[in-house]
Amino acid sequence: MLGTLQIVEVRSVEIEVLANGARLRSLGDSIVASLGLAVLGEPQWHAFPPREDSVGGHTGLWLLAESHLALHSFPELRALTIDLHTCRGGRPFPWIDVLPRALGPCTVHVRVVNRDEAP
Amino acid sequence: MLGTLQIVEVRSVEIEVLANGARLRSLGDSIVASLGLAVLGEPQWHAFPPREDSVGGHTGLWLLAESHLALHSFPELRALTIDLHTCRGGRPFPWIDVLPRALGPCTVHVRVVNRDEAP
Repeated sequence: MLGTLQIVEVRSVEIEVLANGARLRSLGDSIVASLGLAVLGEPQWHAFPPREDSVGGHTGLWLLAESHLALHSFPELRALTIDLHTCRGGRPFPWIDVLPRALGPCTVHVRVVNRDEAP
Repeated sequence: MLGTLQIVEVRSVEIEVLANGARLRSLGDSIVASLGLAVLGEPQWHAFPPREDSVGGHTGLWLLAESHLALHSFPELRALTIDLHTCRGGRPFPWIDVLPRALGPCTVHVRVVNRDEAP
């Protein structure tokens, strides 16, 4: 199966959290681990330099046996995006429960796309 | 801006095309180049071993200054998925024109998610 794409936007996050690469990487690692997904190779990570108007954000990409996880932080918008494509069945990840515990106060918006649905 | 996520499923692709890592990688590189996006580091690539029922697929992840491109081939389903997140404006990529030229006969289904839209 092509599986599902879970598309998450997290807003109103503390800027220090979005600038903290180790904390974000640990969040991505914990999502992958809690779903029992298999990471292939090393996750790719990039720390962006500070901008004129804000501290720098981060991007992390996890190549999975079951597709991929992508995470981008946007401190200038106090936002984080997470995309998880998993080519297998199973329930969606409990984003709305887990993310405020991991990131502190925030609002979480989730869309789920079924990729096996006929156009 | 958080930008847009373009979600593409390509179906009825020739199996040899989906098993051809060099051709798929070149497709990803050409999408990134034609949009003037900046790749950070080396794209991450994984060739999956053959399955019982089919040749092996491929996964490629491009970490971009403007977010990411992810490509997965599923020879057992004669399908390819492409996700492009770009945190900037601009028109959607002309998937429906470009992909059949790059991959041979196929059907292309595109969804575009605006990530700046309020939930």
